Amino acid sequence: MTSSEPPPPCQARNPLGLTVELGRDRPIRLDCGIELGPVTVAYQTYGRLNADRSNAILICHALTGDHYLADPHPITGKPGWWSELVGPGRVFDTDRYFLICSNVLGGCMGTTGPKDVNPDTGKPWGLSFPVITIGDMVLVQARLLDHLGIDQLFAVVGGSMGGMQVLEWCANHPERVFAAIPIAAAARHSAQNIAFHEVGRQAIIADPDWCDGNYLEFDKRPHRGLAVARMAAHITYLSEATLHKKFGRNLQERDVFSYGFGPDFQVESYLRHQGSTFVDRFDANSYLYITRAMDYFDLAAENGGVLANAFIGTKTRFCIVSFSSDWLFPTVESRAVVQALNAVAANVSFVEIRSDKGHDAFLLDEPEFHATLTGFLEGAAAHRGLPRSGQPHHERS
Amino acid sequence: MTSSEPPPPCQARNPLGLTVELGRDRPIRLDCGIELGPVTVAYQTYGRLNADRSNAILICHALTGDHYLADPHPITGKPGWWSELVGPGRVFDTDRYFLICSNVLGGCMGTTGPKDVNPDTGKPWGLSFPVITIGDMVLVQARLLDHLGIDQLFAVVGGSMGGMQVLEWCANHPERVFAAIPIAAAARHSAQNIAFHEVGRQAIIADPDWCDGNYLEFDKRPHRGLAVARMAAHITYLSEATLHKKFGRNLQERDVFSYGFGPDFQVESYLRHQGSTFVDRFDANSYLYITRAMDYFDLAAENGGVLANAFIGTKTRFCIVSFSSDWLFPTVESRAVVQALNAVAANVSFVEIRSDKGHDAFLLDEPEFHATLTGFLEGAAAHRGLPRSGQPHHERS
Repeated sequence: MTSSEPPPPCQARNPLGLTVELGRDRPIRLDCGIELGPVTVAYQTYGRLNADRSNAILICHALTGDHYLADPHPITGKPGWWSELVGPGRVFDTDRYFLICSNVLGGCMGTTGPKDVNPDTGKPWGLSFPVITIGDMVLVQARLLDHLGIDQLFAVVGGSMGGMQVLEWCANHPERVFAAIPIAAAARHSAQNIAFHEVGRQAIIADPDWCDGNYLEFDKRPHRGLAVARMAAHITYLSEATLHKKFGRNLQERDVFSYGFGPDFQVESYLRHQGSTFVDRFDANSYLYITRAMDYFDLAAENGGVLANAFIGTKTRFCIVSFSSDWLFPTVESRAVVQALNAVAANVSFVEIRSDKGHDAFLLDEPEFHATLTGFLEGAAAHRGLPRSGQPHHERS
Repeated sequence: MTSSEPPPPCQARNPLGLTVELGRDRPIRLDCGIELGPVTVAYQTYGRLNADRSNAILICHALTGDHYLADPHPITGKPGWWSELVGPGRVFDTDRYFLICSNVLGGCMGTTGPKDVNPDTGKPWGLSFPVITIGDMVLVQARLLDHLGIDQLFAVVGGSMGGMQVLEWCANHPERVFAAIPIAAAARHSAQNIAFHEVGRQAIIADPDWCDGNYLEFDKRPHRGLAVARMAAHITYLSEATLHKKFGRNLQERDVFSYGFGPDFQVESYLRHQGSTFVDRFDANSYLYITRAMDYFDLAAENGGVLANAFIGTKTRFCIVSFSSDWLFPTVESRAVVQALNAVAANVSFVEIRSDKGHDAFLLDEPEFHATLTGFLEGAAAHRGLPRSGQPHHERS
């Protein structure tokens, strides 16, 4: 790790994000044993790194997320996935904190992944890309921090797969994390979660346009399979209550059944839309690799079957958040993390947010959740000795 | 309805089932407005119809079930789906009751469905087969009873989609049902249920071998899409607890990750097996039609939005059964039926069976469930005046 480089030029921030090439001289050794390098990392920053480099928050995105945290997505044009939380005076106060969000290794929005060209062959990696893990993703993020000259993060935060990354940071790079907020996450992927991922993968692999993973060489895209994968996954992101309240059995632009196989019901139309728009912004092979990384994640297994062993001696301050109607990463999984942290006498807060919005609640307007984030960050910042927002070194907008 | 025909020749029962052609002179008017006929119905019977034709139980199968209730399945060779419940002295005591089980309209095991030849064109129906409803399935069953000379069923019993048929019988043919046991069912398909079905349908439709539904003409089968549909559905039939207990994160015939996309985990291997074996015994278009019929089912909507109106004046004795870990047809759906029946002062028992086996519990070894069935049938039989099993007219095996 090096702190010799200057802070990044955040005044000249490119709304499309920044990129850096890492690991050319020192390849990244992946869990599978392969050494990968160089690796391009696409990332975005918000706010300004303070003089003692102590106010950095790494925000980790979920399965199909990216580093467009608070900038419009370049393909969909939609606001960044946590836009509402980022800005002066907001949960992630850009007057106070320096935010970093990078596209994960294996992704498809700028960081090296299976859709990129393998420099050794001149062809897209496809399935010759090494199978990666959550640990590998975090290792690349750690290299990014080295590049940015940040020894220790003030906080690392993320929901769903982002929360897995948070836990991975705390388990395997504990000295670099002052505070951690894993949200709607788990220390391992459950059998049911693996099962849903496997359905999605098989839907992609079943699409003849997948071409054994080499679709880019044939100028094809397995859009139908990827859309089905997205539809299946999307159901798991919502609660039954949300589906009922949002759609129920309402018909789509009709009063009576069509007695056909078109989208009679609003919920069908909605799912089809989710599937068809997803394929415009996501790469099918990335979907395979990233779901696999989540399936492989199991912090207890890496520590002799005892989750608490992952956190022995931790000095990190934890805030664990779950949502009551999340059936993909249910509260019981968060409780398991809390119990493991309690077993090693860690500093841990735990909040189950009452919500009927299901797993996706972490992306939605949930005032109690946002208040929880703000409150925990405030407390941690006080412990870290970060000046309060609005203090002299910055003006409030 | 006619009672002129003799009881069926159950002594000469063909283990492959019986077939009858119905509706040649009087076509069956479907809910979509189309008149269909003739219709072949494949069915099986067990036991013997008594002299006053009062001991018949109709057993309705679920989505991918068939009339091989207690005979080996002709394709898979596996025991019938309720084999353990059928026989002398068993839950469905063949010394006492006369059991009828027919393959549903739209099915693929002998009853007319989209894989059969349309007599008007000489080609398989494919998507020109009319879209059917649960009501249409029951109408065909009613015609089968006419053929068998049975005015009133002693009982109608079924789980999942079979339970929907039971409710349909009670709502729209109440005088023909003395007792009814809808199991793990609902009076309407929920938004989440429709969503899962839509994923399955889109997986089939996405398979190029589906050929716009005309795969039989091209001697193709959309096996990949159908397998994905089955995999997705299969997850919903099991509880998270079952998946955890049965598979957890156990690896399949290996000690370490493969860092590939093969079935590393047992749960993946299991799901792939479920998908690949299903396609040998089921027709993809039948899957589209039958899932659609379930989606359309909504007894309240048919009755001015008030479910109780479906049962006004009912004399049927009801036993409603749900399973505590069933998240596809959760207990709350059964309770809604119970409340509707209570509102019309119907004779109703309700049992939620404690089980961690999920929706599929109705097909599995659940002693409390089986005792519930036996007890309710005993009581109803006493009210109906059926002689006890073991009484002179039959010897016990």
